[in-house]
Parts: sequence; C-alpha cells; structure tokens
Amino acid sequence: MAYSGEPLRAEDLLFRPQHSLIDQSLHSKMGATTTNGDGFGIGWYGEGPVPAVFKSVDPAWNDRNLREVAAQIRTPLMFAHIRASTGTPVQRSNCHPFRHDNWLWMHNGSVAGFHDLKRDLMLAVDPSLYPDIEGSTDSETLFFLALTFGLTDDPVGAVQRAVGLVEDVAERHGVEHPVQMSAATTDGTSIWAFRYSSIGQTRTLFYSTAVEHLRALHPELEVLRELSDDARLVVSEPLRDLPGAWQEVPESSWGVVRGGHDDLQPFTPERSHAAV
Amino acid sequence: MAYSGEPLRAEDLLFRPQHSLIDQSLHSKMGATTTNGDGFGIGWYGEGPVPAVFKSVDPAWNDRNLREVAAQIRTPLMFAHIRASTGTPVQRSNCHPFRHDNWLWMHNGSVAGFHDLKRDLMLAVDPSLYPDIEGSTDSETLFFLALTFGLTDDPVGAVQRAVGLVEDVAERHGVEHPVQMSAATTDGTSIWAFRYSSIGQTRTLFYSTAVEHLRALHPELEVLRELSDDARLVVSEPLRDLPGAWQEVPESSWGVVRGGHDDLQPFTPERSHAAV
Amino acid sequence: MAYSGEPLRAEDLLFRPQHSLIDQSLHSKMGATTTNGDGFGIGWYGEGPVPAVFKSVDPAWNDRNLREVAAQIRTPLMFAHIRASTGTPVQRSNCHPFRHDNWLWMHNGSVAGFHDLKRDLMLAVDPSLYPDIEGSTDSETLFFLALTFGLTDDPVGAVQRAVGLVEDVAERHGVEHPVQMSAATTDGTSIWAFRYSSIGQTRTLFYSTAVEHLRALHPELEVLRELSDDARLVVSEPLRDLPGAWQEVPESSWGVVRGGHDDLQPFTPERSHAAV
Amino acid sequence: MAYSGEPLRAEDLLFRPQHSLIDQSLHSKMGATTTNGDGFGIGWYGEGPVPAVFKSVDPAWNDRNLREVAAQIRTPLMFAHIRASTGTPVQRSNCHPFRHDNWLWMHNGSVAGFHDLKRDLMLAVDPSLYPDIEGSTDSETLFFLALTFGLTDDPVGAVQRAVGLVEDVAERHGVEHPVQMSAATTDGTSIWAFRYSSIGQTRTLFYSTAVEHLRALHPELEVLRELSDDARLVVSEPLRDLPGAWQEVPESSWGVVRGGHDDLQPFTPERSHAAV
Repeated sequence: MAYSGEPLRAEDLLFRPQHSLIDQSLHSKMGATTTNGDGFGIGWYGEGPVPAVFKSVDPAWNDRNLREVAAQIRTPLMFAHIRASTGTPVQRSNCHPFRHDNWLWMHNGSVAGFHDLKRDLMLAVDPSLYPDIEGSTDSETLFFLALTFGLTDDPVGAVQRAVGLVEDVAERHGVEHPVQMSAATTDGTSIWAFRYSSIGQTRTLFYSTAVEHLRALHPELEVLRELSDDARLVVSEPLRDLPGAWQEVPESSWGVVRGGHDDLQPFTPERSHAAV
Repeated sequence: MAYSGEPLRAEDLLFRPQHSLIDQSLHSKMGATTTNGDGFGIGWYGEGPVPAVFKSVDPAWNDRNLREVAAQIRTPLMFAHIRASTGTPVQRSNCHPFRHDNWLWMHNGSVAGFHDLKRDLMLAVDPSLYPDIEGSTDSETLFFLALTFGLTDDPVGAVQRAVGLVEDVAERHGVEHPVQMSAATTDGTSIWAFRYSSIGQTRTLFYSTAVEHLRALHPELEVLRELSDDARLVVSEPLRDLPGAWQEVPESSWGVVRGGHDDLQPFTPERSHAAV
Repeated sequence: MAYSGEPLRAEDLLFRPQHSLIDQSLHSKMGATTTNGDGFGIGWYGEGPVPAVFKSVDPAWNDRNLREVAAQIRTPLMFAHIRASTGTPVQRSNCHPFRHDNWLWMHNGSVAGFHDLKRDLMLAVDPSLYPDIEGSTDSETLFFLALTFGLTDDPVGAVQRAVGLVEDVAERHGVEHPVQMSAATTDGTSIWAFRYSSIGQTRTLFYSTAVEHLRALHPELEVLRELSDDARLVVSEPLRDLPGAWQEVPESSWGVVRGGHDDLQPFTPERSHAAV
Repeated sequence: MAYSGEPLRAEDLLFRPQHSLIDQSLHSKMGATTTNGDGFGIGWYGEGPVPAVFKSVDPAWNDRNLREVAAQIRTPLMFAHIRASTGTPVQRSNCHPFRHDNWLWMHNGSVAGFHDLKRDLMLAVDPSLYPDIEGSTDSETLFFLALTFGLTDDPVGAVQRAVGLVEDVAERHGVEHPVQMSAATTDGTSIWAFRYSSIGQTRTLFYSTAVEHLRALHPELEVLRELSDDARLVVSEPLRDLPGAWQEVPESSWGVVRGGHDDLQPFTPERSHAAV
C-alpha cells in the first residue's frame, strides 16, 4: 500500500480502513498465499528528506510497537508492506520497503529460479552500490538493479532495464517466465507503480480514483471529506468495497501518482541483444 | 496435539503428517480463527522426569530453530500447541503448554469475561502456587486452579472442580457461558483430554483409534507399521483423512490414554453451592 | 532517564549525549549490574494526551526500529528505560515505562522477596485496576499500588502509601529491607522522582541544574544554547561529565520538575499500624 | 567454544562451568568488546550426519528455549558461539556457527574494510556454492571461500588459501592488515582451530590439556573423573582458572583435535602472485 496526499496519521491508513492492510495480512483474498505472516514494514517521510522505516518479522497484526508508533506519525507519503516469504529467510533485512538515500522500493512477487540466477544478477549491480545490499531477497536485488540502471534519474526506464536484465539472465539459465512483479517506488514526492510479469499474469494492483470524483459519487461518506483533493492510494487489494473508488492498473503497465495526478503507460522490459 | 507411544522424532509428528499441526497454523479448517499465528509451543519428555518446553511467539511455520530441534528430539510423549490469542499479550509466557513440575497443560478455548473474572479466579489459586504463574492468560489460570484442586492426585476431579469454580465466579459476575475448553494434561505417562463448554458447543477434539485396528483397516499403509501398538494421538483436528482413524471425543466428556488404552467418561463441572 | 522542556528529537536524547542511555545499556558504571540487556522502553507525549510507548526485549543498542523512530519523534516529555531483569521473564509486558491513561511509571530497583509477597500485594490493588496489569514484575505492581492509593491526585502521598504497604506486607512475611527504588512518574506535565530504599542505600538518581545556571558556567557549550530555559533531565547516571550540571537526589527524597522549576522533599513511607 | 569427547549434555557445557560461555557473553575479559549481546548459536551432532544448529538474536543469557533444549541434548561434538557484531545486521542468518552439509564453521574476528572488499570476495566464491550464502557477514564469506578452496578435502590448506585471497584482495584495495581470525571448523569428527591475523596480534585461543594429564595434576576434582579420556575443548577464553588445564594456541598457528589427540602447526596464508 502506498499513500500520498495531505499528512495523515499512519494509524488511519493502516488500522482504520475496512479491509485494511493489517487485516489483509490475516485474510488476503487475492494474494498468492492466504496468510502473509513473514514480516512487515512501513516507510514514511517525516523529518528530513530520508524516509524512516519500521520493519519487523513479528506478524503485523500483533505488533504493539507498530500500533503505538502509527498513532504518532503524520506523513504525506507512506509505503506499507506485508511479506509472504518465497523462500529467503524471515529477517528484518528482508522486509520491505527497502531504502536507498531518499528512495523507497517495495515489491510483491518473485524472481523464478532466483537461487540459480542470484550470482549473475548480483554481478550486474554497480560495485559502488553492492555493499549496501543488506538482505538476501530477489526483491532487494531488483531494487539495486534498478538503482544501477538509473532509478533516481529515470525511474521507469531503470525498472524496464532491470527487468530486461533479469529476463536475459534467466534465458541464459533456461528459466522461463522469471519475473512476477507488482512494485512501487518513490522519491518522497512521486509514486511510480509497476505491474508486469514475464508470463503476462501479474498479481493485482489498484490505484484510487481522484478524490473529487469519489465525493461526487458518494456524497454521504464523511471519510472522503477528510481526505485532501490530491490524496491517492496504490494498493494490491482495494481497501473498501466502494463502487468507483478503485481502478485496476492494467497488465504490463506502469503508472505515476504526483500531486494528485496520475498517468498510465505500457511497461516494456528493455532487453539487451548482447546478453541474449 | 498430544502423542504417546514408542519414542518418535518430533519432526515426524510436527512436520510430516499430511495436514500437520504446522500446516494447521496456516490453514485451520475447524478452529474458531483461521490463522493461528500468536505463538506456539511444544513440551516433551526426554532426559529426567520434568518435561522440556520450547515456546516462541514467532509464527511456528517459520521458526527454523523449531525445525532444527524437532529433527533431534525423540520422545515417547509430546504436547504441541499453536496459539490464537483471545486478547492477552503475545509473549512466550503466554504460550502453551504450561508446565508445573512433571505436568503439562494446554488448552484451546477461552474463559468469557476473563478481564472481569480474573481477580477472583486468581484469589482462588493456592497461595503457595500463585507466585509460579508467569503469564496472564485464562488458560494458565485454569491450569493453576486445577493444580489447586488436586490435579496431580485426581486429574479429572480437579479439572471438574476448577471449571465449576469458574462457572460459580462467572455467575456472580453475571457472565453467561464462561467456559470454552478443549484441553489436555499429562504427567508424562497418561494423557487426559477434556471437551467441555458451558454452552454445550465445544471445539472439536479427536483421539486416534488403536493402531492394530487401523492396520487391519489399511494394511497397505507403511506409516502404520512404523507406529508402536500403543501409539495414540489426541488432536483438535484430524491429521490425515484416513477413514476409521479418528474418533471424536463427544461433547461434555473426558478421556484418558494410557499405555495404548483409552477410556471415555462424561465431564461434569463440580460447582460449590456455597459459592453461588 | 526523563526529559521535559521544549520539544526535542528523541534521537538527540537517546543517542547523542556522551555517555548516553544507549551507551549505558552496554557499560553501566553505577548500576547494580554491568549489562542491562533485558529489554528497553521509551514513552513520550505527542499526539493526544495519552503517551505512546515503544518497548522491546531486543537489546536497545541494536534495535534499528528504535533508531528510526527516535529520529522522527519530537516530544516535550520523554521517559526512557533500560531493564536489567531481577528474575521475572524478559518480555515486552515487563518492560518500562508502564502506562495507565496519561500516566507513565518507571523504576530501577526491586522488591526483595517479591515471589513470596506478590499475592498479598496484588490483593491490595484496587479490583477495578487489577485486570489492567499485563506483566509480572515488582515494578508494575508498585505502579498499580500507587494508582490504588491515589497517584493521579496526590502522587507523592500515593507512592509513600504504596511503599509503606510493601514494607508492611514484607514485615508480615519476615522479609527485611524489601524496597529498593529509584523511580519516576509523570502525567505529561510534571515529573516526580523518588529515591528511597528500606535499608537507606538507594541507587543513584540525579537531576539537571537549571539551564541558565549551566550556560553561565559553560558559555562555550553550544548544546546548552539549543536547550530551552525550562529543559530538565532526571537520570540514574549523569549523561556527561560536566561540572555543575548534575545534582544528586539525596537518599530518602522525592523531587518534582515542572516548567523548569524543581523542588526536593524528604520521602517517608506511610505505614499502616493496622497492617502490622 | 568447541567440545569433542564422550557425549555430554549441552547444558553442562554451556551453563555449568565456572566462567562459562553464557557468563562470558555478559562479562568477557579478553575479548575486544566487553558485551557480546548480538546473538548466539550452537551447532551439535546428534541424529544423522548433518549437525543441528540453534541460533538466535536474543541475548544468550536470557534465552529460555536455549536452556530447555540444552538440558535435553547429548552430543559428542558441539560448537557454541556468542556474537558481537562488527557492523553487519543482527539477524539469525548472521549468527554462528555456519553450516554446510556436515561441516560447521565459527569465527571470532573480522575482515577489515569488508564493506569495500565484499564484492570481490563474493565473486571468488564458487558459483555453485554462492546461492547457499544466507547472511551478510565477513565470517560467512570466509567460510564459503574456504569451501571454495577445498575445505572438505584439505581443511588447513583451504583456510590458508582463503585467508591468502582476502589479503590479496585487500592489498588491491589498499586495505592494511585485513584479517583478524580465531576460527574453528569441524566435519563432526575432527576439530580444526585457527589463530591468525595479518598484523600478528590475534585474539586469544586455547585448547584443553589431555584429561589424563589433568587428572594427575588435580586428583581432587570430581568433574575430571566424569570426562572421557578423549574429551577436548577449544575456547577463546579459559572456562575455569585451573592451573595446567589450558594451553594457548600460539600466534599464527592451527591445531587439530581428533580422538583426544592434538597437533599444532604454523599457519601461513597462501597468496597468489598473480593476484598481487
């Protein structure tokens, strides 16, 4: 889940919505696994340009510190993630969101055959970035590949090149359909979201409709009056069953949310002919 | 889950059976909650008369130490429990099984209105036992009440008196149907199981049929040949879908498993007229 | 450690001072034990009248979430505590500070013979407060006794009565010198600090001198210019070796810090003749 | 600490000796840091050829599961390690001992400039072994380099080549004196111990004298009668102040303990002229 808009309390984002992220960690309806209890994390922008992250391997639904802290945080931009491990250890350094300077990254999905591809992927990470990798997941590797390919200057192009590289390396190793990715990244101002998988069947990803449009549809809902005009959410599952509130990011697309505006474009991995 | 019989590896009991206890912690079919991720514990008899306990608040399905230890333990009698908190803190001292000297106790269920009844129930615990209470759950309180009422000499009578006391105290406080209990206790030799609720609708409890009977029914199953004649399991949900393998403990009953034999009797709380 | 004054970042209070609280958890010079690694906690006033608490059983010096959160918190009043267990379990619910409504309590020291006295002390807790006790420590029991005796109306009198009760109960049980207490409590505005032990040899407790006085003594220190005039610290060990900065709370005394002012008075347990 | 000899209870090795490993985690006398609270681990041989490992980031001195398990384990060969992080995250996958098939490895010390050298060192790990690296420490990297260079066939030669490689890579990066290493490895039968540092000032390492020799020196000590003739310990600090019991492994040496016998030889890193 990613939020941007007027500063809200983290508590209101995490615990208040009907079918909230915390609730989803217990009873995911659309995710690949039905219980996501392998750690969670939030990242938010507050004091200073570098976001803070709170990550833990305790199940999110029982973390009392998370509740305490969430009640004290106001933030204009927050990422929140519940992890279901696809094999790598359950430890704080493998929890999302991952951070580099003022950037955050989180990812639902996996790199198929990661055990076999890992070394080649790690070799492709810029040597100056390499030592900052703290965990052992495919998700963090994707982030560092994107950083290597210029995430901070050209987020979409960098992710397209990172995904292309993974597909190149996978092809060399005989791994089919390596990438499964619903992902989001932010620099503290804009949120880029990506929905792509090599096989063309990616986990769901939604973004919220413009708030003014929603207010017109549901004038009776008080919660909408509390939201600022530029408030936007990107989620893997809708937080409420509210007609008109959620639009699905189409297969093989990326979108950006900035100052309440959004844009959707096709996502096309950039593969290197040399590598194939 | 409780096992008694020839020494088996904990790993074979916890991780091997189709629909095992670990698997149940992710996808319980019959439990009141569908995800039991609030800690787990095992207790087993090995060196010495006092059982060892291994308890943790990490989700059982990801606890690598549990897997490591389970592969090294051989035991003739083991209790295993996955907790779903009914409100008290998620901490090791609230995980089952609870131990006192050579006794173990575990409990699925709850005491309704425990917040209001707690003080009176604690007052009824024998002052010499009181300081040994380490956690804050209704389940541990039930155990200490049973110890107070003579668990080590007369297990069934003691639990009947403990449950009766809870019903007395609840009546005084205007709490209806206070007890919901599928429970088991052991001294290292026998296993007593209890299924009772004040309202007469208790969570399920099963015990396994005599192994020789099962072998006759399913001569093709190798796993049955590995089990000793006196092997018995008590579980809240059947571990395999094996016709003839599981018998339900009837509502308001207790049973005992000892040396491969079993006995079933009605369970009747002993209420004190004075208390009412 | 307790701070009140202009809102400061928790990070500056916890991690910046030479010989900081975090550093003290590794190398305590004056404490009874040299390593305090049994959990820590902070409580602070921010959004709303009820303080937030962040407590954990991981060693404070390695808790990355603590560092992340501390960098984002600004607070005019914070309590911080590092625990060295005197026997009760190492679990979050036993970490200080303890909270009740808008009050916080923390305690260095112990109740001698607590295992034997516990039941009688718990019986003395007001039945309406009793169910809110979450942990199993002597420190939390002291807090609830003080609440029982009127902490929110008359903090000093309530603590004097609570300590008197402990001494009464201890005498009945033949326990000598039961109370060892450096403690602090706050309602979010004032901080009361207590130094008392039955034997008259209490762990150290210091409070900081008025900032204007300090600035006159050390005009060269920039850090002092950043502090507000009413900034005050109460600590069990001085945070810097700064001549004139720290005044010891005398044996058998209590003090209050409010709006930059402080007051020191003798502490005298109120014992009940009836109880003896 | 490493033990080999007749099967002993882990409890007797970890908790019983005066100045035991657990005690050392609180008050190390000779180590570089005085408090080792960043996780611990034990590895032991029991059922099957592959050793079990129990590792945790909780402080060893408070881990109740460790105490429970240690009371139930009997083993002829155990490694135990208390970690003081030199910067990499405090997480289970960074705790020692590290395991690969039937081998264990543990290490006190560090690789200076590891942040800068890491990528080149990881590149030198055999691609087929690379994906099995789970953590992020210099110690695990050393283990996988030794495995790459033939640890299972020629343990001493492999470690000499691994250390030589680190020194080569460090020289290329301008890092002086990169290796600080007291280490031990085992295949379940023999224990190899290494004491070496590039600067020639390595943390201490001791091995116990032959038991029969000790019995002659201290005929009054019962504990010695309980030990088998072939019992041997390798430790970074002596467990008891017993004259004649401990021999220091000299600077720049390796030793092997097998069936009660030991051998000491010089340790010489094998550097590649090509690499320089």
